[in-house]
Order: sequence, then C-alpha cells, then structure tokens
Amino acid sequence: MATNRSPEIRKDAVHNRWVIFSPARARRPSDFKSKTDASSSANTHTECPFCAGHEHECAPEIFRFPPESTLDWKVRVIQNLYPALSRDLEPLNAERGGGGQVTLRGSGFHDVVIESPAHPVHLADLSPAQIADVLLAYKKRIDQLRAFDSVKYVQVFKNHGATAGASMSHSHSQILALPVIPPTASARIQSMKEHFEQTGECAICQVKQEDLSIHESSHFISIVPFAATFPFEIWIIPRHHSSHFHDIDPDMARDLGGMLKLMLGKMGLQLKNPPYNMVIHSAPLRAESTELPFSHWFIQIVPQLTVVGGFELGTGCYINPVLPEDAAKVLREVSVQD
Amino acid sequence: MATNRSPEIRKDAVHNRWVIFSPARARRPSDFKSKTDASSSANTHTECPFCAGHEHECAPEIFRFPPESTLDWKVRVIQNLYPALSRDLEPLNAERGGGGQVTLRGSGFHDVVIESPAHPVHLADLSPAQIADVLLAYKKRIDQLRAFDSVKYVQVFKNHGATAGASMSHSHSQILALPVIPPTASARIQSMKEHFEQTGECAICQVKQEDLSIHESSHFISIVPFAATFPFEIWIIPRHHSSHFHDIDPDMARDLGGMLKLMLGKMGLQLKNPPYNMVIHSAPLRAESTELPFSHWFIQIVPQLTVVGGFELGTGCYINPVLPEDAAKVLREVSVQD
Repeated sequence: MATNRSPEIRKDAVHNRWVIFSPARARRPSDFKSKTDASSSANTHTECPFCAGHEHECAPEIFRFPPESTLDWKVRVIQNLYPALSRDLEPLNAERGGGGQVTLRGSGFHDVVIESPAHPVHLADLSPAQIADVLLAYKKRIDQLRAFDSVKYVQVFKNHGATAGASMSHSHSQILALPVIPPTASARIQSMKEHFEQTGECAICQVKQEDLSIHESSHFISIVPFAATFPFEIWIIPRHHSSHFHDIDPDMARDLGGMLKLMLGKMGLQLKNPPYNMVIHSAPLRAESTELPFSHWFIQIVPQLTVVGGFELGTGCYINPVLPEDAAKVLREVSVQD
Repeated sequence: MATNRSPEIRKDAVHNRWVIFSPARARRPSDFKSKTDASSSANTHTECPFCAGHEHECAPEIFRFPPESTLDWKVRVIQNLYPALSRDLEPLNAERGGGGQVTLRGSGFHDVVIESPAHPVHLADLSPAQIADVLLAYKKRIDQLRAFDSVKYVQVFKNHGATAGASMSHSHSQILALPVIPPTASARIQSMKEHFEQTGECAICQVKQEDLSIHESSHFISIVPFAATFPFEIWIIPRHHSSHFHDIDPDMARDLGGMLKLMLGKMGLQLKNPPYNMVIHSAPLRAESTELPFSHWFIQIVPQLTVVGGFELGTGCYINPVLPEDAAKVLREVSVQD
C-alpha cells in the first residue's frame, strides 16, 4: 500500500489528460466491492432470443463459429435488432447549417456477438480457447467491415450487467462500425503522436512498470495504468508493438483468452462480480503509415464501482479514489482458482 | 415531432464532437420518464449535518448569506469534509517520470454550497430570489478563489439524486477550484476558437434557433443544443456575450433564478423528477483577452435517463435516442403551475 495519502493529479502520454487521485476519500483499496453482483441476475432465459434454439427470434445472422454448426454453435455474430446506425451506405454528404452545425446521415453497422449458446455462461466462465473464438469472431467481423470505404473506425465493446449498459443478460458484446473517427481515438492519436515526436517512442510500448503490473503472458501484459481514470481499471497490452487488434492471430488470441479470463476472474473475485465495460482501443482502419509507429492497440476493462457526476460532466476530468499502484497490488495478489 | 426517424450524426461548433442520434431506438420523446424519483427520497433528516441547527457537525464554514444570520441563514458555503483536493497550496512542481508520465500535487479547493437550511427543499422549490442567492454565493466564492494564483479553473456543479452522484440528499452544490485547466474546458476553447477564426463569430452567440428554443427571459435563453449529448439536455445561455459566470450581477442572478426554476420545473414534471447534474461552463479564470471574444459561459443541465456504457467509454461519442428539436418541443410545451 502506498503510504502517501495526499491527493495527486496525474497524466500519462497515452491520453494526456489529468486524473485526480484522492486516496484519502476512499476506504482501503482492498475494501472496494461492487454493490450489485452482475453475474447472479435471475433471468427468465427460457425467453432469451440469444439462447441456442431461439436463433429465429434474432435479427439476421452474419456468421457463426463453426460455420456449419447447428444448435452446437460456439459464437454467433448477428445484426443488432435496434441498431444505433443504419446499414444504408450511400455516400456521406455533410450538411452544414449556420453556426458551425454539421449533420451526417447515421450510416454504419451495429452488430452483436453472442459469446456462448448457453444463457448462464459469462465470458469469464469460458475456457481460454473459447474466449479466443470470441476474439477471432471480432477479428473476422472487423475484416469484413473494413472492406467498406465509408467505415472509418470499428469499436468493439462489451457491457456486462444492466447498470453497465447491458440490455440483455445473455453474455454478448457489440461491434459498431462508424463513418467518423471518434473523439477518444483522435485525441489518443494526437497525444501519442506528440510523445513520439518528442521521444521517438510509442507511449504504450513504454507503459510497463513493475508496481503497476498485474500479470504477464507470452504475448500480453496487464497493468493498472499510471493515470487510471477509474478505480481498478485494467489494460491488457500486446507486448510487441501492434497498431490494429484485427492483426491478431490464433496463437495470440488463445494467449489473450487466457489473460482475459484471468483478469475477469481476479476482478470478479476481488470486487464481487461488478458490472463492467470492456473496450478494444485500436488504430483507425485507414491510419497513415506514418501513424502506425505510435498507434498500439489495447483492451481497457472498467469495473463499475463509482458514480460519474457533475464534476466529470463539467470538466472531463475524473476523480479516482484508488491509486493505480494500490489497485495493481491488490489485483496481482488475489489468486484465482481454476 | 420530426418525421425523419433515420439515424443522424451531428456536431456543433461549441464542442466539435460527433453525437449519434438514433430516434428509432427510442420510445416517443414524450414517453421518456425517469425510473427513480430523485425528489422523494425518504431521508432521516434529523441526522443531516446540512440542516439548520447542525452547523457544528460540518466542516468549517467559509461564509453564509446573510452574513450575520444564525439559524435563519439562507445559504451556507462550507469546506467539503472529504475534499478531492488538498488546500495545501505550495508551488506546484510537475514531477516527470518515464514514458511521458506527469504528477502534480493535488492542490486546490473543494467546497460545498448548502442551498437551503431546510432538508426537504430542493433547488427547484426555491423562489427565483432564493435561487439568485445560491448563484450569488457561487459568484462570491469564485471571486475569493480566483485571488489564488495557483487556481486556474473553477468548476461549479450540482448532483441531484444518489444515482447522479449526490452522497447527501440535502440540496447542495459543489465548487472545485483546480490547479489545471480541465480537458472539457480546453477542448471547448479550442473548438470555439476555430469557429471564431473561420467566421468572426462566437459559436454560442449564434446557437439560438427557433426549433431548439425552450424559453427566453430578459437576460437568458434556454435551448436543447443542436448536438445534445444526452436526451433532454438543456443549456441556459446569457443573451449578451459574457465569458465568465462570475461577472453576473444581482439583476441577472434574479432573472437566471427564474429561468433555472422554470427549467427544473419543466424537466421534473415532464420526466418525473429525474436525478440530474447541473454544471456551469465558464472561461478559465485567467483567459487571455484574445480568448474572450469566443468564450461564452453557459449552464448545462443533464437529466439522468440513460446508462453510459462501453461504446461511450471507448469512443467518447454518445448515442442520444431523442432528437434535440423533439426534446425542445416537449419541454417548450409542458406547462409548470406556480
């Protein structure tokens, strides 16, 4: 445990934005627990359209693993029944109004990845090989989506638990293909570019540091980032510089499956199965070759332990009550039984 | 109601960031209601330290209105018992680590404004003149805080309801004085600057537009912004260009009190007393004189109706199921009885 309990303000070269650390406001880091157990929701899964046998109740399927399987499929990628964007892909004409207002048609893709045919099985319950199938389904779908010129960025994300935004309790993730590069990605690129110009290094290649480390596998490291926005936030980072998640191969996917299972297991055990969000931060699909040296994909996992209020809304600055080195120590030490 | 139900992506010149509007995912705009009634919490207010008669249970008082009042005070400004920042104001030395990591000591001020001596009274229940007292207490405290060289930005905000971040149910707001200019403020300044350089106009002076308007008073207009991040988000904007909230005078404060009461009343009636956040966006305290022509303060009110999930975390891009012109029409038409 760090002995210094005074507030600190930190930023890193990845996001280049200030985070306030106020450990004195917190309980001990090891006392953090989720108020809701997101894994124990008693679902009427006889009525769940994501379950095996209910495929006809879903929006159209895009593909499944294995391709020829019937009720024994492992992963299904389907259209979202309530898409945020329309699959209508006419050329995008920006309409410009007065006062700098710009409107685009909301064209893109919004898909769902059903991670298991069985309702009570969560991502963390799958084997590393099964999680690898989910990751390879993401990759395959991104490979399809990046064939469309109008798709500029693909966001893969997972909401686990109703308060984290999941409207279905059956384990799933979502893929949104956007006609614009979203603000978080462009801000990250700008910040990593500045760091690269100053130092000649990729900020994420340099992120490893003993007191922030949770675990290392053949191809990945997991850490609590130096300027973590949220308590117990976890990053999983490829050891070797790589700009796009979709360049992952089956060997890396298998290794990442094990790392993800371990991180979700540690988080679930330590924080009492919190609702969480998981996102993949990758480079824009058509990043310039000059941008690749400072673009490094990673996975961010955020357990939902605190409420975001007016301060964060007003400033874009977050208050984190747990110092990253304290959170890393707790997560490093908690031992998951297989 | 707009007849066009296809998704749109919009941005304005104030924030210059894309928001996705997916009206087809929504119920009718007029069907939006809060799931929790934030006003009806049954509090054990005999134990509330913010109530009149319990002043000795609070952190030290900074001032009260009227200054010589006893139990009949109207507004009290006190220190936060669990401050996010430390009042220790030694010169700030940035510590620079490897990999672009920067640490500052977390110095600043974190105060609380108790808006009424009576526990069950919410901000919206106060008279325009009483709300003006709260606003003038903000102004007075900002005037004190901006005397400190190390304070770069002051964020005034209010969390109403536990799920919006309020840890105390007694009506209060907070003032955080920061040693850095926070990301939302610097991004807004940059975006408004670009618009000013292109057009010679302040983007907020140009924001008014009939279909987005809710109400107008002598000194203020209220609108749903063209690229509202959240459903039923409201902005209250001074009609005449003004960079800093703390330049408000008693006459404007009284007028703003009436406007705020009306907006909170309409929102509460239409959306069933939702939890909400209210923030004041003002220019940095020591903004350059060249920045003032494109810096225009305003109040943002965000009712809590939707859950923020992995997509927003990953992209910084928000999905709003209600078109701003639809929300504005609903809010314009709902009639609040005095």
